[in-house]
Amino acid sequence: MNGAESLVRTLVAGGIDACFTNPGTSELHVVAALDRATEIRCVLGLFEGVVTGAADGYARMSGKPACTLLHLGPGLANGLANLHNASRARVPIVNIVGQHATYHLDHDTPLTSDIEAIARPYSKWLRTSFAAAETGRDAAEAIIAARTPPGQIATLILPADVAWTEGGFVAAIPNLPRPPMPANEAVERAATMLRSGLRTAILLAGETLHGKGLATAGRIAASTNAKLLSPYPFARMERGAGAPSVERIPYVREQATELLSEFRQLILVGAQAPVAYFAHPGKNDVLTSPECEIHTLASPGEDYVGALDALAETLSLRGNRSAAQKAERPEVPSGDITLSGLAAAVAAILPENAIVVDESMTSGRGMMAATTGCPPHDWLVNTGGSIGIAMPLAVGAAVACPARRVLCLTADGSGMYTSQALWTMAREGLNVTTVGFANRDYAVLKREFSNLGLGDPGPRAQDLFEIGRPDLDWVSLAKGMGVPGTRVTSLEPFAGALREGFQSEGPTLIEVPL
Amino acid sequence: MNGAESLVRTLVAGGIDACFTNPGTSELHVVAALDRATEIRCVLGLFEGVVTGAADGYARMSGKPACTLLHLGPGLANGLANLHNASRARVPIVNIVGQHATYHLDHDTPLTSDIEAIARPYSKWLRTSFAAAETGRDAAEAIIAARTPPGQIATLILPADVAWTEGGFVAAIPNLPRPPMPANEAVERAATMLRSGLRTAILLAGETLHGKGLATAGRIAASTNAKLLSPYPFARMERGAGAPSVERIPYVREQATELLSEFRQLILVGAQAPVAYFAHPGKNDVLTSPECEIHTLASPGEDYVGALDALAETLSLRGNRSAAQKAERPEVPSGDITLSGLAAAVAAILPENAIVVDESMTSGRGMMAATTGCPPHDWLVNTGGSIGIAMPLAVGAAVACPARRVLCLTADGSGMYTSQALWTMAREGLNVTTVGFANRDYAVLKREFSNLGLGDPGPRAQDLFEIGRPDLDWVSLAKGMGVPGTRVTSLEPFAGALREGFQSEGPTLIEVPL
Repeated sequence: MNGAESLVRTLVAGGIDACFTNPGTSELHVVAALDRATEIRCVLGLFEGVVTGAADGYARMSGKPACTLLHLGPGLANGLANLHNASRARVPIVNIVGQHATYHLDHDTPLTSDIEAIARPYSKWLRTSFAAAETGRDAAEAIIAARTPPGQIATLILPADVAWTEGGFVAAIPNLPRPPMPANEAVERAATMLRSGLRTAILLAGETLHGKGLATAGRIAASTNAKLLSPYPFARMERGAGAPSVERIPYVREQATELLSEFRQLILVGAQAPVAYFAHPGKNDVLTSPECEIHTLASPGEDYVGALDALAETLSLRGNRSAAQKAERPEVPSGDITLSGLAAAVAAILPENAIVVDESMTSGRGMMAATTGCPPHDWLVNTGGSIGIAMPLAVGAAVACPARRVLCLTADGSGMYTSQALWTMAREGLNVTTVGFANRDYAVLKREFSNLGLGDPGPRAQDLFEIGRPDLDWVSLAKGMGVPGTRVTSLEPFAGALREGFQSEGPTLIEVPL
Repeated sequence: MNGAESLVRTLVAGGIDACFTNPGTSELHVVAALDRATEIRCVLGLFEGVVTGAADGYARMSGKPACTLLHLGPGLANGLANLHNASRARVPIVNIVGQHATYHLDHDTPLTSDIEAIARPYSKWLRTSFAAAETGRDAAEAIIAARTPPGQIATLILPADVAWTEGGFVAAIPNLPRPPMPANEAVERAATMLRSGLRTAILLAGETLHGKGLATAGRIAASTNAKLLSPYPFARMERGAGAPSVERIPYVREQATELLSEFRQLILVGAQAPVAYFAHPGKNDVLTSPECEIHTLASPGEDYVGALDALAETLSLRGNRSAAQKAERPEVPSGDITLSGLAAAVAAILPENAIVVDESMTSGRGMMAATTGCPPHDWLVNTGGSIGIAMPLAVGAAVACPARRVLCLTADGSGMYTSQALWTMAREGLNVTTVGFANRDYAVLKREFSNLGLGDPGPRAQDLFEIGRPDLDWVSLAKGMGVPGTRVTSLEPFAGALREGFQSEGPTLIEVPL
């Protein structure tokens, strides 16, 4: 068994069942091993930003890591922006990168680069495997590192000669470390705050935004009158009818400050204290009121769900009373395209158990408010602010959850970063309906230019904010990658295309010029 | 004058007249300064791989740096793969990256990253500007660092608060350092080798592949019967009728070894000794004969052209005798599409003074041989092996040389990495004719899989090498980005579309299914 085979067989033993990849010459022995490992579904991306974003989406929905397989330093570099987002989502990814044969590196050939240096900024665990006999063990440790709570990126670099050398073996997978509980004092303090009568919010992150963690948070909120909040960037939120209500802190500074102004106490569960996305001259970055006490119940790496359980117990909560969202959805709207009309149409039609991937930027800011009463569904957003995540994330979510429908909301500016994901959707026959909001603008930059006090942009600055001239034609782009698309100019056909998308086999795209 | 203004005014003073960019919120003060700096042409890319590849193409054709303006760590990360290629091309680029306000970094907000760490692998010069009063000087030093022979990437990181703070000034541009001459012994030894009667080749790189350097190399070759070679990756080669003949070392190992086998002496001018692109088990990486003596006349950073001048003088060359390529071009071919037919059509039609950007991969391997007798033109190829450079490079070359026609040869696999460049071509009205060779394959991987002794790929490996299912439709992709395209299935319409492309205003695309 060579090093590549020991890598792949150890991945299988460690429960890895999906590999998102764009391999090259230096990874071909791994490809040969994957060729024989039918336990792992291999999904090709035509660009590595698709690969890493899909691995993120897969992890968010499955709760476990996929692996990637990337070609040398440049392949890794192309995947780096969505690894940035994944590192902020705190998801597990086993990020495998090929390297030249060790003895070849001295020649400094064109594709040679310092892969460890490129990987380091976004890898919580990083290793080059230097001998076939160690590759299995390295892979096992990478899996455990990736799965170490709350989830992290583990990068394993495999030189070609290590891959092709005999002497490998399948390593045993060590036990997954259990996350430590926060100190009792942290739990006691949170309980005291919740009993104090002061207006209190609980800011949730990670696995407390879905499943058991969210249910417990909902019980605590219902019993104590605390409000549940999520950061503007979150990895996955379970929501809709029956789910506890969680309000997302808005992107716009003034709106966030307004929302947070009433709270005198804020309890963090895996989340950071809320601050502005960007600094502005003369403005305070901190979004909470100066009188607000901020208390950390659980830090990243600690047992968030266990912490909430302990808090519920300390509060002597009885029963399952929770402030669940009521089921309510609007009628299908009609008439001209408006942002609120688009949101209402989504709210009217979204199928039960859907996964919504939302990178609709300025165009979709009303989308979450409109859909709170929809049938139960999950919502995924951009966690790191590097645009171009929506379609890759949708690929990964659809691979993880083949029985569920994925609605992918993207803007034209962000969509152009990784539009190659459409091709992967078509190849894999993924049930993703992509809505492209085409406002022909980097609208957020226009607003920020004004917010920063820079006045009205002149024609040269305008040219950098407007992405019309020529307009992007998303229906043609989708057709070019094998995805059927349609362009709608009023709400009825939008609703019709949405319905059709949710019923069709394979991906569709709806372009909405704004 | 704030820091942003002092940056931009210093760039103008330093001769920077093009900025390739995709800015974000943290760069808006620089955008405001660029808005007022009409001396700099700002070119928007919808993805940063386009931005950095265009800066590379601009530098190759103009001989001087453009600047970029990238948004934080992720914007830089997206541009990194083409910076890898640019670093291997040894071109000058002033790579400007925005950063959060210095005091904002402690908050570790979603877009925070270690930008210096991300930039370091590909930046020969790297600095964060920490005060508005220093930004002008930092910019001046970045320009000089970028232009230090043979040309390098200088990354300047500008925090938002430094950009918006008053107290900046326009810095004087220091004198450009002159590259040192190689030692006399190196010149003497090269002369002795050329006089020895042993079969000798001169391997040229950088500026010895065009202009005065190439002319001198041609005279030396003609007088000494030496052969002129170029590495497989080169930044820019002047060629065609009247130019000295330079043979490119092939990518395929066996072909390269065959070409080099006759030489007993090899003189390097800015080039590295030829080795295989990738290692193969049991094969020798060194491509030259074991009997071949390799001598370095000039190393990167030394004065290549001066070294060739000194060598010509030492050899007492008289006159301008040079082995110039004869003018000869084939008839326009007809009939079914074949690779040799496509090459012949290009050879028959290529206009004088054209710039050919060639990333046609396996499909275009006969293209250079066919065009040696064409009217004078320049040829640009992928220098670092990170695919997805052709269309961005074409953007930069066309911006640098608005009076020249650009022919961009791309494969479907490589083209999908940075197809967003088509939109920039349309927006800027660039005279680029893109030919997309659509073989529906990562063909090089299929060949290498077999070369590595891995046998025939099974269906799962095949799926990672074949990019059909669905076929990419390049005409639709181009239409989606505002570029008129056509698909041709025989040689006459290919020739017709080429001619039309070379005559049209603005970009066109020709898809050639293979």
